Amino acid sequence: MAEQSSNDCDSLWSGADLVTMRDGAWNIIRDGFIAVTAGRIVAIGPAQEAVRFNPTHRHRFAGGIVTPGFIDCHTHLVFGGDRSAEFEQRLNGVSYADIAAQGGGILSTVRATREASLETLVELARERLALLMADGVTTVEIKSGYGLDKPTELRMLRAARCLGEQMPVEVVTTCLAAHAVPPEYRDHPDDWIQVVCDELLPEAHAAGLADAVDAFCEHLAFSPAQVARVFEAARKLELPVKLHAEQLSALGGAELAARYQALSADHLEYATDEDIRAMAEHGTVAVLLPGAFYLMRETQHPPVAGFRQHKVPMALASDLNPGTSPALSLRLMLNMGCTLFGLTPEEAVAGVTLNAARALGLQASHGSLEPGKVADFVHWNITEPAGLVYWLGGTLPCEVVYRGELR
Amino acid sequence: MAEQSSNDCDSLWSGADLVTMRDGAWNIIRDGFIAVTAGRIVAIGPAQEAVRFNPTHRHRFAGGIVTPGFIDCHTHLVFGGDRSAEFEQRLNGVSYADIAAQGGGILSTVRATREASLETLVELARERLALLMADGVTTVEIKSGYGLDKPTELRMLRAARCLGEQMPVEVVTTCLAAHAVPPEYRDHPDDWIQVVCDELLPEAHAAGLADAVDAFCEHLAFSPAQVARVFEAARKLELPVKLHAEQLSALGGAELAARYQALSADHLEYATDEDIRAMAEHGTVAVLLPGAFYLMRETQHPPVAGFRQHKVPMALASDLNPGTSPALSLRLMLNMGCTLFGLTPEEAVAGVTLNAARALGLQASHGSLEPGKVADFVHWNITEPAGLVYWLGGTLPCEVVYRGELR
Ligand SMILES: [Zn+2]
Ligand SMILES: [Zn+2]
Repeated sequence: MAEQSSNDCDSLWSGADLVTMRDGAWNIIRDGFIAVTAGRIVAIGPAQEAVRFNPTHRHRFAGGIVTPGFIDCHTHLVFGGDRSAEFEQRLNGVSYADIAAQGGGILSTVRATREASLETLVELARERLALLMADGVTTVEIKSGYGLDKPTELRMLRAARCLGEQMPVEVVTTCLAAHAVPPEYRDHPDDWIQVVCDELLPEAHAAGLADAVDAFCEHLAFSPAQVARVFEAARKLELPVKLHAEQLSALGGAELAARYQALSADHLEYATDEDIRAMAEHGTVAVLLPGAFYLMRETQHPPVAGFRQHKVPMALASDLNPGTSPALSLRLMLNMGCTLFGLTPEEAVAGVTLNAARALGLQASHGSLEPGKVADFVHWNITEPAGLVYWLGGTLPCEVVYRGELR
Repeated sequence: MAEQSSNDCDSLWSGADLVTMRDGAWNIIRDGFIAVTAGRIVAIGPAQEAVRFNPTHRHRFAGGIVTPGFIDCHTHLVFGGDRSAEFEQRLNGVSYADIAAQGGGILSTVRATREASLETLVELARERLALLMADGVTTVEIKSGYGLDKPTELRMLRAARCLGEQMPVEVVTTCLAAHAVPPEYRDHPDDWIQVVCDELLPEAHAAGLADAVDAFCEHLAFSPAQVARVFEAARKLELPVKLHAEQLSALGGAELAARYQALSADHLEYATDEDIRAMAEHGTVAVLLPGAFYLMRETQHPPVAGFRQHKVPMALASDLNPGTSPALSLRLMLNMGCTLFGLTPEEAVAGVTLNAARALGLQASHGSLEPGKVADFVHWNITEPAGLVYWLGGTLPCEVVYRGELR
């Protein structure tokens, strides 16, 4: 939290109200300034205190508000193929079973992703990521999990890294090799878990491709015992873990994840009191994914009141994926988090800023407007931050500052 | 449906699949061309037949699809004030009654709209309309209804006309003076109906400000008998009518509207078999508004199966309004129409093209790619039209052609 002693700074931003999200609350500074040096915030305060700075560049907004850059902490945005035809079939009454029998569903994405080159994966994902960025995203997590074989899982992670190098956005990668049972391992999934633990995770780690490790704990994917093996392997590599847990049933996955000091447990529609207490104890963030809830017409709601009561931080994410949430706007998830799950607008915005940073282990450097943090922020032409949640759909006009520079 | 005899045309568009929406179905022409003269489509067909044209301008798309321009046939996008703080209060548990006691709710919009000048109304609405247009809208209906006094109702309609003059979009205006009981008439609403019938509608009509007349038939607004008086006045002026009907209860409003040959009945969650049959008989379009359904957490679904069975054309609209649907994207309504109401993607896209044109009485000239119709169309970088519905939120990149010119 260093404040610069010299009065020089690279840039000084003023003319708007600053919605700092310090401590996960609005904490608004009316008519504030942000001083930036070397891509970091060095000072922030009311405009009259800005006179002590001598910036190289000045930027004055004409009113409006500034928020921290949005952080989408759960996406699967690298994939091959197109599932829109399958979406249309479902709405025309074709059953999941028939679609699966035709080779549809997640395995069609796996097939298309395996066939796609690194360049193709990057090119397809770039368009999706550009749309998320247009609505205020400056940090995005991207998972593997549609390769389900070693080369493709590594290629997906490489594609995610390439996106972070090519575009003005910070990419955090997560190895989700335990997303689904690969077709080749249908009758012996434990052998895939062994490949993941013994070969894939160590190789991904050695190549610097994985910032975290995730798995899908569900009847149709992996058991808590199998997930525990993946988490043990991650622990040996000192990689943090997270988990798709309690989406369709209560298996105690969130509790298991918390015991492994998981950064987050995600989905959580069926989380129990035990899950909530374990998450509170270990500081595991609850990542709520209203896009999938909405599109799958789910009726079981995540236990928001319990998370609040036990002070489990709640994040919101797009879950951008081709099957259950082809969501191209994190801002829409703010509205869905409030409308469908009953979050307040303040909780929702905390869920895509400070708490999303926590879900990625980045809370020391990201997620709020505070000295010492990265200078990632967004100027919006609205007067109150609730407007970010209130306006439904579309892309609100905004100016994005990434690492201290207009994007 | 004239096809030009000469081979000259102003412009020729090719390089994409044409999703014509002829007869309200996809009716795709793979690798097609559109020939345009004087802002109208003069011919359309497979690319190889384009050789007979000698265009002044050629435009070749690099793949993708072209749809008719989207038509948002039900909006309230001209209004003053900001209800985002009230939205936040509601999510923080403040009751509707307490909000109303503070002067919130629709009457706060009425107050702010009455205080706003024509210029302010246009300026505020311009931003909202620009966002709708960014996601493919080329024709938009705009209602009055937040004035609830004569000068403000007329000013709202004038603001709508100004938007159509200032922006490359076609604006259709609807006088909705019977939207709510004005506070001044709380104890004698019939007197307001009389002002509407005897003064407001004739003046709006004489000034060329109203293309149609609408009312809100509901316990908290106006009775079927009061609506019938408004419809009689409209009939005398030869103005077509439409109605907000059966949103919260079954009052027979849709049937009443159909008997007056209404262009559309809108909302319709509580429409009965009698309503459906009357709408089918009189060609009244069912305009479904999933944004309000979603935001109000309604559980009663409009009778889509009944509309299908009786061949009542279904349209979808944003209902853009500050209270129950601050929706900035008609494309999001496509997804909500399918996800929440069970429309197919083809029905949903028909609902914002040909059937939306019907709901405005414009089906002879708008809503499909056919010779003789206006050259309003949109190029999308996707391969199948279901993608318009499938991708959730954000603003899909598109190029909009309005009256034969790139917008
Ligand atoms: Zn996921
Ligand atoms: Zn309406």
